[in-house]
Amino acid sequence: MVPHLVTALTGPLGELEQRILEAAPAIERWFRLEWMEHTPPFYSAADIRNSGFKIAAIDTDLFPQDWQHLPDQMLPLAVQAVQSVIEKTCPEARNLLILPEHHRSADAGYVRSLARLRQILMMAGLNVRFGSIEPAHTSVQQLALGDGQTLAVEPVQWSRSRLTLPDFDPCMIVLNNDLHEGIPGILEELPAQFLLPPVQSSWTVRRRWRHFGLYEDLARRLAKMLGIDPWLIAPLFAAAPAHDLRNAASVATLAERVEGVLQRVRRKYREYGVPQTPFVTIWPEGARSEGEAVSITSVADLSEEQLARLAGSQSGGSAKDFFIQEGVLTCERLDTRSVEPRVCMIDRHVVGGFYRTIAHDGASGDGLDVAQMLAAPSASFEPLAFAPTVRNAASAPNRFYIYGVLARLSMLAASYELENTTNWIEE
Amino acid sequence: MVPHLVTALTGPLGELEQRILEAAPAIERWFRLEWMEHTPPFYSAADIRNSGFKIAAIDTDLFPQDWQHLPDQMLPLAVQAVQSVIEKTCPEARNLLILPEHHRSADAGYVRSLARLRQILMMAGLNVRFGSIEPAHTSVQQLALGDGQTLAVEPVQWSRSRLTLPDFDPCMIVLNNDLHEGIPGILEELPAQFLLPPVQSSWTVRRRWRHFGLYEDLARRLAKMLGIDPWLIAPLFAAAPAHDLRNAASVATLAERVEGVLQRVRRKYREYGVPQTPFVTIWPEGARSEGEAVSITSVADLSEEQLARLAGSQSGGSAKDFFIQEGVLTCERLDTRSVEPRVCMIDRHVVGGFYRTIAHDGASGDGLDVAQMLAAPSASFEPLAFAPTVRNAASAPNRFYIYGVLARLSMLAASYELENTTNWIEE
Repeated sequence: MVPHLVTALTGPLGELEQRILEAAPAIERWFRLEWMEHTPPFYSAADIRNSGFKIAAIDTDLFPQDWQHLPDQMLPLAVQAVQSVIEKTCPEARNLLILPEHHRSADAGYVRSLARLRQILMMAGLNVRFGSIEPAHTSVQQLALGDGQTLAVEPVQWSRSRLTLPDFDPCMIVLNNDLHEGIPGILEELPAQFLLPPVQSSWTVRRRWRHFGLYEDLARRLAKMLGIDPWLIAPLFAAAPAHDLRNAASVATLAERVEGVLQRVRRKYREYGVPQTPFVTIWPEGARSEGEAVSITSVADLSEEQLARLAGSQSGGSAKDFFIQEGVLTCERLDTRSVEPRVCMIDRHVVGGFYRTIAHDGASGDGLDVAQMLAAPSASFEPLAFAPTVRNAASAPNRFYIYGVLARLSMLAASYELENTTNWIEE
Repeated sequence: MVPHLVTALTGPLGELEQRILEAAPAIERWFRLEWMEHTPPFYSAADIRNSGFKIAAIDTDLFPQDWQHLPDQMLPLAVQAVQSVIEKTCPEARNLLILPEHHRSADAGYVRSLARLRQILMMAGLNVRFGSIEPAHTSVQQLALGDGQTLAVEPVQWSRSRLTLPDFDPCMIVLNNDLHEGIPGILEELPAQFLLPPVQSSWTVRRRWRHFGLYEDLARRLAKMLGIDPWLIAPLFAAAPAHDLRNAASVATLAERVEGVLQRVRRKYREYGVPQTPFVTIWPEGARSEGEAVSITSVADLSEEQLARLAGSQSGGSAKDFFIQEGVLTCERLDTRSVEPRVCMIDRHVVGGFYRTIAHDGASGDGLDVAQMLAAPSASFEPLAFAPTVRNAASAPNRFYIYGVLARLSMLAASYELENTTNWIEE
């Protein structure tokens, strides 16, 4: 079960929410049995959308880089979850090395996330230091936390198939670098050290069609348990591999696939009497965040600017894979702002969450506007931590539990995904 | 590691406290490795005394009956800890049966503790019901929570070596009954159900000399790690078996042993320049709480009334075992009241804690007065939950961590103890 946090949405539970809450014992048992067979990712974060009629995870991050938003009150839960990872991975561990993202070293928010991650790992009883695997880094870097303090990142040493720092030989290495520029050879063979998460957690290896295919399979099983239509907890999607957006014919086939998903969503909206306009989000496969994606309500709306954004650095003639996902509305509001819950997990446990909020005029309250704004590369996310409940947890409906179920569904999908890609890499 | 809670004592850390905090990575690693070999009790609670120069567990309860004091904010931690027990005990569990204490069914505080325990177990994803193994209970009892609500305790059914309720076949049975009147045969053979904790956790089987002997061995190992005198974290003690307090010669030998412990404590006080007067606590073996014990500073002070209390229901000629324990002062104060921290644990995790406070004129501030008052059978305990920190956990010294270390030391001793008594029962 997950912590009970106050959600922005405070109204009565919808039928779907009520059904998930009532099935909690069956759901928890199912997760327990799944974790006997499958290994959860070291850490993860899921973006959840609750449209009232539908609740689903729309993205699953295996390199969470926003730990600074985890409130102090949630630390013991994160620490306890980390302890269970240490116990099963390397109980004799003394030292742990964190490999941070290089390109964000001047971003004080990210440096605070690293400091928070270090705090969690230290409270679990480990000595923690930061290392850089960037060959250009030959001396210690001091990253600024923004409050006058700094955090030292030391160049790693590589010898006898081990990554070390001076007088520091770690048993576990935590990767907080999403390896977007490719997997360095130095990380591919660490026979005697535990690298968490494994390199195939990078978006350079992951594919959204694979992840959401597995998510859909699991959502079907969960939906059967709940006696509901799986669509109510899973976004429709289509893979669109090998498109060259500099080529009109290729754009046309992408548009066809987009239209296909939109039609399936329209049919579902009609079936459930949903009055809103359906939309889809087009992700370039390998995109690290929604900022690289584009949301549209109609193929006709796909602008040159959006096509250019999707094409990104694509050069003429090269093919690129896309992922087309049903857009899910959010009915969560904070003041006049639309918000999207993000659920943080360590191992198989939900350890907290926060909202990604965005300035919003509040005039329309239309989820689609929000989705488009969230998708805009310039959107600034203003995170707001879920507040732990202070009132009797039994007296208020635990909407955050529901978000935790969907987040764990996506985390379980990621576990299957990592198993599959391990085989796939070994093939 | 344990949650960071605000302790009443807010002054700077003493040298001993500082040393324990600094050794946290080594301490956590040691506990991790111990848990690979030993099984922690399902739940436990330790009474901790911090005299400033000395911090030790003075009692370890394997049937905590005060869960109602665990604040809401700590629930997720307790739930996560319970989940790890379910995972390793009976992952396929659907149902859990709690066997409560019979003689406290009219005590609304205890009934609220049961309700809290049920809440924790339900949030971990189980269906939970209460059962009575008392043969006299043939119908459902409704216990009052004091707020108008009730909690149903149903008579258990016993067939095919299983305890069940109507339409309810539990995989796990949680014993919250300390079996003070002896171990019912019905609980000794449950070949296909998990009874947590096992029956030998009862004070009818446990002996304080055995527990504190194991605690002392472990304290020696921890002290070596910290580079300190083990006395700083363990109370001195002596066993005094087979005394008949109706017999003057027997009282004299008990007095001799008491004097022996007092002399050892006096030597230590001189060595460390402690100005206070040493005292000892005499426990009848099998005592469930300090209320059955007697604290004195000198053998000459042992009154007839105290002897009578220790003898209890002892009839002339029958022998009774006693345990003599160095008294440890408490320097924790809340307003003008002296308080004693109690740390609650589930499995190997600290999940919270609270103070047992007692009305106190605050005039002397002498720990001994407090010990005597705590020991008085009429003392009313006014529990006060530790408040989780709201400020940055890194900025304040985490005194509660230190209490968690000592509490886990006593819990580890209980693990060894249960292993030993399992063998002892089998012999």
